[in-house]
Amino acid sequence: MKLASAILAASALVAISAPASAQFAKPEDAIKYRQSVMFIMAQNVGRVGAMAQGRTPFDAKVAADAAATAEFMSKLPWAAFGEGTDKGGNTRAKAEIWTDKAKFNEYAEKLQVETAKLNAAAKTGSLDNIKAAMAGVGGSCKTCHDSFQAAR
Amino acid sequence: MKLASAILAASALVAISAPASAQFAKPEDAIKYRQSVMFIMAQNVGRVGAMAQGRTPFDAKVAADAAATAEFMSKLPWAAFGEGTDKGGNTRAKAEIWTDKAKFNEYAEKLQVETAKLNAAAKTGSLDNIKAAMAGVGGSCKTCHDSFQAAR
Repeated sequence: MKLASAILAASALVAISAPASAQFAKPEDAIKYRQSVMFIMAQNVGRVGAMAQGRTPFDAKVAADAAATAEFMSKLPWAAFGEGTDKGGNTRAKAEIWTDKAKFNEYAEKLQVETAKLNAAAKTGSLDNIKAAMAGVGGSCKTCHDSFQAAR
Repeated sequence: MKLASAILAASALVAISAPASAQFAKPEDAIKYRQSVMFIMAQNVGRVGAMAQGRTPFDAKVAADAAATAEFMSKLPWAAFGEGTDKGGNTRAKAEIWTDKAKFNEYAEKLQVETAKLNAAAKTGSLDNIKAAMAGVGGSCKTCHDSFQAAR
């Protein structure tokens, strides 16, 4: 299917099956969306992390671009954890996401704060600043996944 | 695998197998990265497109958020079309991407220009402005895919 047709089809499904606020045509799309966001975020955080740990040479421009992307991505997955998206795809999301929303939302907020700090740190061009901020980001990823992501 | 471990593993692979500029540990990651970006972009463009075509109610805030995301995503896939990423995953990328780089880069640039226009249009809150800008985005998607994406 050409992308233009795919977009039309996706939009038509949204119109038929979901209120505008739900935004996704079907649970599979929401699951794929948040997994896509997480993959892009992990790639960019991993890129900065490799520099912070001295495993790749520090490149301030690459680090700044990656950190900016990580911060942007940190805002996107949450709308894709709507009701009814606990099943419908190959998801490791635990039921607690929907039964303990206050905690999930707190962790979601925390990630956005920490990636914003990483972005600010990367903009300074200082590897020491980046290292300090990476600890916060890594901790935020781990804390949330420990509670809300099923083991493989 | 926990995400923290995955990030460490991914970063380690980058360090071992690729220069910092290549950014991806293996072709599969680059392919998954650009496909993730395209999926997120298509979802957001589709959301605005549904409003432009009157198939979902116009919500200026949702449209503006989606257009901003589409513009951001339009910058990301290109670094993931590096040499050697024509194979290694389930990709529909045609060989012409690497044999006709000038044209591919021109189309890549065009998408970024058109999504920037869509973002600017959505910020005005005018559905008519959005409709006009959507034509440019849709045309840009189609032109590039017609040349560089294999049919399913």
